[in-house]
This record gives sequence, structure tokens and C-alpha cells, in this order.
Amino acid sequence: MNAPRDWNTRATNRRDRLARVARELGPALAGKQVDTAKAVALLDAALEPGDRVALEGNNQKQADFLARALVQVDTARVHDLHMVQSVLSLPEHLDVFELGIASRLDFSFSGPQAARLAKLVQGGQLRVGAIHTYLELFGRYFVDLTPKVALVAALAADRHGNLYTGPNTEDTPAIVEATAFSGGLVIAQVNEVVDTLPRVDIPADWVDFVVPAPTPHLIEPLFTRDPAQISEIQVLMAMMAIKGIYAEYGVQRLNHGIGFDTAAIELLLPTYGESLGLKGKICSHWALNPHPALIPAIEAGWVKSIHSFGSELGMERYIRARSDLFFTGADGSMRSNRAFSQAAGHYACDLFIGSTLQMDLAGNSSTATLGRIAGFGGAPNMGADARGRRHASEAWLKAGREARTGLGGARGTPRGQKLVVQMVETFREHMQPAFVERLDAWQLAEQAGMALPPIMIYGEDVTHVLTEEGLANLLLCRTDGEREQAIRGVSGYTPVGLARDHRMVENLRDRGVIRRPADLGIDVRDATRNLLAARSMRDLVRASGGLYEPPSRFRNW
Amino acid sequence: MNAPRDWNTRATNRRDRLARVARELGPALAGKQVDTAKAVALLDAALEPGDRVALEGNNQKQADFLARALVQVDTARVHDLHMVQSVLSLPEHLDVFELGIASRLDFSFSGPQAARLAKLVQGGQLRVGAIHTYLELFGRYFVDLTPKVALVAALAADRHGNLYTGPNTEDTPAIVEATAFSGGLVIAQVNEVVDTLPRVDIPADWVDFVVPAPTPHLIEPLFTRDPAQISEIQVLMAMMAIKGIYAEYGVQRLNHGIGFDTAAIELLLPTYGESLGLKGKICSHWALNPHPALIPAIEAGWVKSIHSFGSELGMERYIRARSDLFFTGADGSMRSNRAFSQAAGHYACDLFIGSTLQMDLAGNSSTATLGRIAGFGGAPNMGADARGRRHASEAWLKAGREARTGLGGARGTPRGQKLVVQMVETFREHMQPAFVERLDAWQLAEQAGMALPPIMIYGEDVTHVLTEEGLANLLLCRTDGEREQAIRGVSGYTPVGLARDHRMVENLRDRGVIRRPADLGIDVRDATRNLLAARSMRDLVRASGGLYEPPSRFRNW
Repeated sequence: MNAPRDWNTRATNRRDRLARVARELGPALAGKQVDTAKAVALLDAALEPGDRVALEGNNQKQADFLARALVQVDTARVHDLHMVQSVLSLPEHLDVFELGIASRLDFSFSGPQAARLAKLVQGGQLRVGAIHTYLELFGRYFVDLTPKVALVAALAADRHGNLYTGPNTEDTPAIVEATAFSGGLVIAQVNEVVDTLPRVDIPADWVDFVVPAPTPHLIEPLFTRDPAQISEIQVLMAMMAIKGIYAEYGVQRLNHGIGFDTAAIELLLPTYGESLGLKGKICSHWALNPHPALIPAIEAGWVKSIHSFGSELGMERYIRARSDLFFTGADGSMRSNRAFSQAAGHYACDLFIGSTLQMDLAGNSSTATLGRIAGFGGAPNMGADARGRRHASEAWLKAGREARTGLGGARGTPRGQKLVVQMVETFREHMQPAFVERLDAWQLAEQAGMALPPIMIYGEDVTHVLTEEGLANLLLCRTDGEREQAIRGVSGYTPVGLARDHRMVENLRDRGVIRRPADLGIDVRDATRNLLAARSMRDLVRASGGLYEPPSRFRNW
Repeated sequence: MNAPRDWNTRATNRRDRLARVARELGPALAGKQVDTAKAVALLDAALEPGDRVALEGNNQKQADFLARALVQVDTARVHDLHMVQSVLSLPEHLDVFELGIASRLDFSFSGPQAARLAKLVQGGQLRVGAIHTYLELFGRYFVDLTPKVALVAALAADRHGNLYTGPNTEDTPAIVEATAFSGGLVIAQVNEVVDTLPRVDIPADWVDFVVPAPTPHLIEPLFTRDPAQISEIQVLMAMMAIKGIYAEYGVQRLNHGIGFDTAAIELLLPTYGESLGLKGKICSHWALNPHPALIPAIEAGWVKSIHSFGSELGMERYIRARSDLFFTGADGSMRSNRAFSQAAGHYACDLFIGSTLQMDLAGNSSTATLGRIAGFGGAPNMGADARGRRHASEAWLKAGREARTGLGGARGTPRGQKLVVQMVETFREHMQPAFVERLDAWQLAEQAGMALPPIMIYGEDVTHVLTEEGLANLLLCRTDGEREQAIRGVSGYTPVGLARDHRMVENLRDRGVIRRPADLGIDVRDATRNLLAARSMRDLVRASGGLYEPPSRFRNW
């Protein structure tokens, strides 16, 4: 007969680890606080081979001190870790694989490390489980990718181990909740230990160890775009977006991501948008990080609310002074939360607008290119039709009507649809065409043995393609052929654009599927940088009444 | 010239309200704690006309004491509230509209109050903004439906105002975070105030007032199904689900909701599932509440993890004793979280299986019936293809392949697909056919002035229809006509079923689109209650080794 199964092995293992840490750290452990110099010893004692580890790598905030400690562990004790983290940003995030400390990876985005990641995969030094969109990875944290150890970053802790994550809360609540409630260990690096926190973002009960870091955790101003670098082509495209999409659908709730294209839109709201009488009719509610480029629109009274995935360096004082718009605590500082902001982006926004490196003739787009395994962050979640959505808005209903008119059966059943816009210049840098017959993603999938090509936004979900040549409304296309010509028809002088069927393209233009600037009543000569509500970083600072304090690298005046 | 805009009105308003509460409650307020007898006075002082209020009505847990207080407020002071809450369950949830305290409503589910809600809408006593799936409503909490006041329920508070929500955390974190970080007020009813909490679920910094309730908050054992009431038809359908879907796709990660149909599946795993050699091959990871019907499968070693939306009464000791499987705190009690479990259900599960009251010939299904405005809870979120998903699994890839084989263009681009199963007997109670030419939802939409018919699961998202007559795989249908005949072909003796095109149905059967029990190698004579791993509540208690303690209403032995 078998011995009865032990159903509480996780609790026992947790106690064992806690006892081991206490034993090995001795006086270097006081309550939950660990001496800075003992961070590596802490990880040596806390970790076990094969552990699933969430090393906090966010879009902006990095648990960089713990990352540096992790690469120094004793590989005789700690190896074959399975890293489950949002973003691979620091060299250490890949060093752990080179050093044999970790061997498996599930992640969402690896922009800065994408080429190195691809090489490591090719060299067999790590096995990628899958690429996820952020909310998808968080979902799996509670199903089949639950971390055993979380290594997170906070601004401060108190003596009990309560954490203040402040403006850049980001992924921390999701990581910590999944780990703390599954018998795991939560280890936080903090910039300082204080008597009283401005507020508690993570309760001490969910935190096992706090390590004061020798330097403040890294944080990247990823969403800052200098208006001086916005081109007149981008101004033109922004005008088309505002007049041809935002105004036409009455888009009130939306998400903007990183980039000069969307920064241009933000900077045109108080000028071009105002001239069209759109204030109050579009762009009231946002799921986006506190973009400096949005300051002029905020000051002009366009914005009612902003919920953020993370914060943005330099915006702290501005946010405090504009607390009616942002999610802030009673202490006045922002609380971001990537999980909730992604849920909002998925279900509460009527429009997602993004950019891509390549789009094919079915409208599939991808930023994956050969020799790079990059992932897509939040784009797949927000750039997909949210088919579970049930509340209506004018924008959503109109998009749904356009997509379904004339269809029967299941596809013709009325429902709304999210507006998903891809905004791309026909040629990207080094004169690479953005429109291609075949995405690099296909070849990458073969090379890396992926089950599917790494497509960021599927053509099925894209509703509009916007280039400097014009705007294609794919919702109105009824056949694969029409869709192909609609895309070719805005692809300019790329080979794909040159191979258009001119008669069909003109027919699509007559039907309003393709619209040129002139069709939208836009004179391209009006598309000058003078339309930008701020033309420099200094303008943004001025618009903020001096409240915005750009990081030094952006202080070019 | 205009006066400069005040950008911090929310913070000022919050201070005003806090001061007003302090003034009006006087000695009845000690720190954050309010005398039980002063709950109504607290609401009179804290609320203002037009406030958006999240009164915690969950699937199971109810802030019932605060609901009873809310209906007693002074309507001269408090009126025109906009209620934004998940579930309308208690009479008070609608009394507030009859009494003129509230006038607008956004919600997710109103099962028990659906008929009364419809009458109030018809009588003009409230205006429904929209019906949402849970995660969608949470998303809007951070965009355009942010609560000004949250009225929530916890098991206990400490003197500082930290909350212990324990097993039924449910919606509380989402409601409180949206309110506390937008200048709102959070008021919690608690069963008791204690010196030391088992653990902190909500930090005191996020909570403004704590009111000890005279009786423990209401909690409904919604997910308990007595195995004695499972029919042999349900056993047969469960066999088809296991063999024809779960085994065929290798479904490892899934969600089960409320109902005898899925309880039958759970109870067949250790018997029928075992006989098919499926242990370890299906049903390892779950997003579901701790269903008592899952106990035999857990005990037989089928289950690796369970994350829950809420808990289930009577399962507390069992969960503690099986902590390897459930999400529990260091104190041993469960932490549920509807937002994360819905994210998991959306993005990390390969299969959703549910039931419906009506399905049309396009596969659209709805539980909406005339004279009732019910909402759909989590079904739209979990029963929709998660188009933002990017990680692969065998089940998801196979479903995607079946759906796309032979298609070109955007629709033919390879991607996976979620399995969405509707499991319905051809006739529901009172011999109402489950299959209809036209859903009642259409008429309801006209009556209630809805922009779209209230469809729970769209035909576009449904992959399988399972009845006692057979299993229809809609993924393999290529035309509206095939889909219609596939549905008719499993609709039995309903008018819709009788009107089938027999030749086309036989052709679909030859192609494996429709499969009868015999086609699946299932002898209907084997479908007896003897196959159930537990045939009574007592059996479930026995299977749990006495750890499961059913509520008294289920103790029928």
C-alpha cells in the first residue's frame, strides 16, 4: 500500500527555505531585512534548482540589484531556473542563461536584448516556453507558470516589510500575489528602509525579505519623445488619424503606446483637434503612461482621466499637481498597475493605435525580424478585438456595423468591434519597406522552431492602416482581394505598393475604403511642425508650468 | 480672463467628506472605526448626490450590512447615485432604485433580481448603462466608471484598518484599488475587529472607514451541486465531453462554471476518465472555484493547481489540508481574486465549457429571456476566443488548425483558438426547446432599447455544441449552411432539430463534424449514475476524509 500523499509540500518547503536563510544569514538577517552585502547569500539560501523565478523586469522599473546578485549565485546550488518575467532588458537577464543559472524562459518583451536572446536560443543555452502579451503572462502566473520565488523592486520598505512601490508599481502586485499565495518566497530590493511609508502598496504579509540596494533601482523614461524630432510626415499622418478615425468614430477611450507617431497626435489635439471642434468629443479617457507629449492637451482641458501601466520619469510633480486626472494615492503619488491597465486597454478602450516594422497583404503585422526574438509586450492584448466585451459605445458599434454589413450567419450577427489602427510610414529606416509579401516572422518561426509565426497584430483584428499616402479602412473590405488592394493602395512606392491594381484601388477610393489626405479635406501643405502644440522639450516644460522635469538626457536647451 | 483651473478638486472633495464624517459622527468615529449603529449616518455624511458607488455585490460575498444601511440614507442628502457593481443579488440592490437613492446602473450579473430589474427599467426608475463581463467592468473602473465610494465586505479588520478578506477576496481588490487611488472613499463592513489579522489582504492605507457588522456578511454556496441530482443524461453528456473533447484535444488548462453538467464531468474523471487512461493527460490546471464535486478527482491525483474567483462555503478545512493545489496565504486560508482568475480564464485556459438557455442556428447563445435583464457574469470573457493570446498549447493549436484549414487571407493566417463548448440538453425545464430559430435576446433588446441583443456567447466563438444526441464540432464547418445543419443535427426532437436536412446531417456525420455517442465509442447503456465517483453529498464528505463540511442545507443524510 502507498503511503498517504503529503498535500502540503509547498508549505513545508517554504518553511525549510526560510529556516535555511535564517541559518545561513545569521545576524545579517534582522526580521525580514537582509544586509545589502548578503544579497547573494540570500539567493543562494532561498533558491533551489529548477525554481520558477520572476525577476522583476518591467517595461521601465528593473530589480537591477537583485539581477546583479542572481548572476553571482553558486551554480552548484542554484541552476536550471525557469525565468518567468515580463521584460528582458538588462544584460543580467540573459547572463543567467549563459552562466548556467537558468535554462528556461517565458516572457513578454525583450526589445533591447532580442538579438542576444536569439543567439542563446540558437546555441541551445536556453529554451523559450513562449512569448506572451503581459496580461497573458500574468494569467499564467495563476495557472501553470506560478513563480516559486519573486525578485521585485520597490522604492521603500518599512521595518515590517510593507512596500511602497510609488508611481512605478507596474507588474509588482501581480508577481507578488501569485508568488506569496502559492507557498513561494518574495524578495524585494528597496531604495531605502524608512519608519513610515508614504503609503503601503504591498502588505508586509506578502513579503519575505527586504534588501536595501546600494543604488536606487533602474528606471527608464521610455515614453518620453522629444517633439523636436517629430517630422512633418508624422504631422500629416496624425492629422489623418484625428480627422479620419478619431473624429469619425468619436473615439473617447483609447490607448497610445510608445512612439513619435502617437506623440504627434497628442500634440495636435489642442491645435488641429481644437480647430475641428473636437474638444470634448474625442480623447477624454486614456489608458497610457503619463506621456509628456500629452501635457499640452491636458492643459487645454482635453483629458478627463488617465490610468497608467507604469509612470514616466520627470512627470512626478506634474502628476501630483494634476491629481484629478491621474490615479494617485492619498499621499499624492501615482499608483500604476500594469495588470489593471491592460484589462482596461483590452475591455474599456475603443481604440488601439500602434506601429509595426512589417505588414503583409492580409494585414498581419510584426516587429519580429530575423535574428531577433523580441516579443510584443502589451500590443497583442490591446490590439485584438475584445470579443468578451458587451458594453456599447458609438465608436465600437460603428466599427462593428462596418465590419458586418452584408454578412450572414455567425459572422453577420451584430456585435461591436475594437478599432485597431496600424500607423506606419511606407518605408522605415534604411529604406526597408514596411509592406511586404511575406513577414520575416515566418522564417523566424522556422529558425526558432516556433509553432506559429510571431505575429504581433493579426490582420483579422486590424481595422485601419494609416500611411503618409492615405488611410485604408479594412472594416469595409469584403474579400481577401479587396483587403489586399486596400493595403497596396496605401503602400506608396514600396514594391508592394507599386504592384497595386490601379483600377481596383480607385474603386476602393470611390467607396471610401481608401482615403487620401485630400479625400479627408486635408491639405498636405498644412501639415507643418507649426501645428505641434509643443515643438521641443522646453515647450513641454513650459506648457507644464515648470512642473515637468525631464531627465537630463532630454534637457537639450 | 478665466480663473486658473483647480486640478485637485478630488483631493479637496475627499478632505471635505472626511471632515464631514468626523464632524457628524463625533465620538462614534474612533480612528477609522465607526460604531455599528452609525452606519447610516456614515453614509449620509460620506456620500454626495450623483456619486458613482461600488456596493460590493459579488457572486458569493455580499456587503449586506452596508446594503441595508444604504437603503436607509436620507434621500434629501443622498440621491441619483450611479451604482457600478458586479452582481445584483440582494433585494436592497434594487431597493436603492425604488427609493430614489440611485438612478443609474452598470453591472455584470443580476440572476436572482433579473425580473425585478427589468420591471424597474420599464418603469423608468433606473437607467442601465450597460451589461458587462466581470473583467470588463473592472477595466472600466479604471477608465470611465471609476467609483467615488466603495462599500465592501471583509472578514476582519485590525485597529489600523487593514482588512482580512480571507477565502472570499473575490472583487474586493479591484474595487478598492480603483476607488482608493482616485480620491474616493473606501468603507468596509467587517465581521469583527481584531488585534492581529491572520494576514493582510487590503492595506489600511487604502481603507477610510471600518464598520463592524452586527452579523457576518452573507455568503452563498453557489458552486455546490449535490451529486444525487445528477441525471444519467448528464452522465452521458459528460462522457462525450471527456472522450470527444477533453481527450481529443488534450485539454490541460480549463475553467468550469456552475452547474450539474460540469459537476458530472468532474465526478467522472476518476472513474470514466481513469478507464480511458487520461490521468495526467487532461484537466491538470484549473481556473474555478473550489467545487466540492472536484474532490474525488483531487483525491485521485488528477489536479495540479486551482486558482479561484471566490471560495465555496464548507471547503475551508479541505483547502487548508490540500494547500499544494490552492492559492493560500501563509496563514493557510485561500486567497481568491476574481480579476486575476478572469485574466487566467481568458488567457491561460484552453477550454471554457458552459451552458445556456437558448441557442440559435448561427450558434449564438443567451440566457436572456423576456422580462428578465440578467447579465452573463464571467461567461463572455472566458467564452470568447482570446485573440491577444500568443502562447501555444496542443489543444489551442489543434482547434486553430481545424478552424482555418482551407481558408486564405487574413482568416486563413494560422493562429490558435480557444475551445468554447456549449453543453445543453435539447429541452430545458418546462419542455422549452434550447434550440430556437431566433433568440429571445432580440426581442428583449427591442423592449429595453439595447444597442445589441444581449448575447452571452457569440456563434463565432463557439467551437462545440454538445447535447444528449451528440457532439457538433463547429470548427470544421465551412459555410453558414453547414453550421446550421451541424446544430440542427444535435438538436434532437426540438422543432429546430426536426427540421434538419437529413442527408446533409449524415454527410456531416461522415465527416466527423457531428458525432453520436456510438461514433465516439460510447455505449449509452454505460451512462449510469454508477459511473459517478460520488453519488451524494455524503460521498463527497467521505471522499474528502471528513474535511469538507457542507452547509446545513446540503446535509441531507
